[in-house]
Amino acid sequence: MAKEFWIGFDLGGTKMMATVFDKNFKILGSKRKKTKSSDGETGAERLVGVVEEALLEAKIDKDDLCGIGIGFPGPLDLNDGIVLESPNLGWKNFDLRGLLEKKFKCPVVVGNDVDVGTYGEYKFGAGQKSRCVVGVFPGTGIGGGCVYEGKILRGKKLSCLEIGHMQMIQNGRLCGCGRRGCLETLSSRLAIAAESAMAVYRGEAPHLEKIAGTDVSQMRSGAIAEAIHEGDEIIELIVRNAARWLGIAVANTVNLLAPEIVVLGGGLVEAMKEIYVEEVEKAVDNFAMKSLADEVEIMAAKLGDDAGVMGAAALAKDTFTKE
Amino acid sequence: MAKEFWIGFDLGGTKMMATVFDKNFKILGSKRKKTKSSDGETGAERLVGVVEEALLEAKIDKDDLCGIGIGFPGPLDLNDGIVLESPNLGWKNFDLRGLLEKKFKCPVVVGNDVDVGTYGEYKFGAGQKSRCVVGVFPGTGIGGGCVYEGKILRGKKLSCLEIGHMQMIQNGRLCGCGRRGCLETLSSRLAIAAESAMAVYRGEAPHLEKIAGTDVSQMRSGAIAEAIHEGDEIIELIVRNAARWLGIAVANTVNLLAPEIVVLGGGLVEAMKEIYVEEVEKAVDNFAMKSLADEVEIMAAKLGDDAGVMGAAALAKDTFTKE
Repeated sequence: MAKEFWIGFDLGGTKMMATVFDKNFKILGSKRKKTKSSDGETGAERLVGVVEEALLEAKIDKDDLCGIGIGFPGPLDLNDGIVLESPNLGWKNFDLRGLLEKKFKCPVVVGNDVDVGTYGEYKFGAGQKSRCVVGVFPGTGIGGGCVYEGKILRGKKLSCLEIGHMQMIQNGRLCGCGRRGCLETLSSRLAIAAESAMAVYRGEAPHLEKIAGTDVSQMRSGAIAEAIHEGDEIIELIVRNAARWLGIAVANTVNLLAPEIVVLGGGLVEAMKEIYVEEVEKAVDNFAMKSLADEVEIMAAKLGDDAGVMGAAALAKDTFTKE
Repeated sequence: MAKEFWIGFDLGGTKMMATVFDKNFKILGSKRKKTKSSDGETGAERLVGVVEEALLEAKIDKDDLCGIGIGFPGPLDLNDGIVLESPNLGWKNFDLRGLLEKKFKCPVVVGNDVDVGTYGEYKFGAGQKSRCVVGVFPGTGIGGGCVYEGKILRGKKLSCLEIGHMQMIQNGRLCGCGRRGCLETLSSRLAIAAESAMAVYRGEAPHLEKIAGTDVSQMRSGAIAEAIHEGDEIIELIVRNAARWLGIAVANTVNLLAPEIVVLGGGLVEAMKEIYVEEVEKAVDNFAMKSLADEVEIMAAKLGDDAGVMGAAALAKDTFTKE
């Protein structure tokens, strides 16, 4: 094929991003926009618009597209490319693959966002060529993904690696999923923010107080990292404890899947790489079987924001290219 | 191939068993013996002897053997068929595959015992034809296995699915692995026996007292089941609580692997199927993501003692037969 172009699309809770790649995964054009809560039609239009603008920037005609890959946060029917539910976009049983295939006249594959990000790291970043790579992305929620012998590990219809809802503490804090004591209640950005807000309220974190006050919605990863950097020791303790719980969940996952690489990614890790890698390494040494802990390497993601779009485009290429 | 015979070998902590199968997995002969602690040489002789006696009983010449599959408890180098360590047989870095290939002049494959048992259930028992089957076998320890898209899920060199050492309680009871709070400290036969012995000592379990006294080594699965049957309600509570913890670990595994079938097997489950299936089902409903809990079925193993030898023989056949 003379002309071979692929699009990777990453739909996040706060922003969406489309990138056009050539066959060697050189970036030809990229476009990002904020994700806005809306009804289905408007959300879909917005998404299509971002793809079109990325094509414009890359100066690629949509007739030359070989395929589109999408990373999507939230429950999907992987077989049919249907979004089962998306609070951010107001979608329910929305045929995302159908819409895009009709609009761009090329094959489309839809995957879970963290699976796709892990696939990106596996192909181009931290986990290259490893037999088994687990990705763990703590953020507002905590997502997991796994590439096993070159393919994304998955359920029959749904994605798997739901590490954020691993049961860590009996009768723990209430989770967004309706249960108690899930990892997300201990290690998500929101859990860190809530505990940090308590410390600010008690007057123990003067730097974070200046940046964010006691408002958990202002305590983004960058704000937390900055407060630690400025000297709020209690905030560092809070983050280290959250990272330690994350590490225990990673240790359980290492015991089950025996990966060679665990890639840590997402906003929190991006902002505080050393703390995360250090605490997760320590927890894996303490809580995974020695023989399996010895075989795994914990590392921070290398592709940053590009993991999603690169993984999505590579997934499209690997899905639709027959050797 | 006119003559096609396979041997499955199951090496357990208390007994070893070899069975000869024809190509349709009809049993032609079978032999079992107690596993005895010994030095490496004697253990190996014993193992070879059991295979030879099974061949004798089946009236099969060893020259007609197509392959041998072995399920082994304890750490293995799966690639080279080497037993890294076996407390029961006194082996360390023992080349089990090499020995048997030399002795029987046919290809040999060595796998983890629970992986192989799960493979047996996948091929012939409870998990037939399912895309993803997880096996959980609580006993003296708690082993796990997974068959994913027809193949045993594994580590680079070691087996995986070490569900028995999932971290359940921070600073919990001491585990045989040296850590604290592992699932085995809550749900193994030994954990149940220890808690039951306390109840007997307090005079709360008169039936178990008659059967086993306060000696944990006398509290085998059958004794525990019998005491419950006779009316020791507190022993039932103890077993149900252990099964519930097992169920929480299964729920975490369901969240990570999204299997269609979870097969529960081993001595405890064999003796108390209803209690185990009921409590694990309940825990999966309570602690796994709803969408994934809805897609999984919990069932008791169907092959009993034959799961190991059937799985091992099938693994040999599937490994060494090219279509």
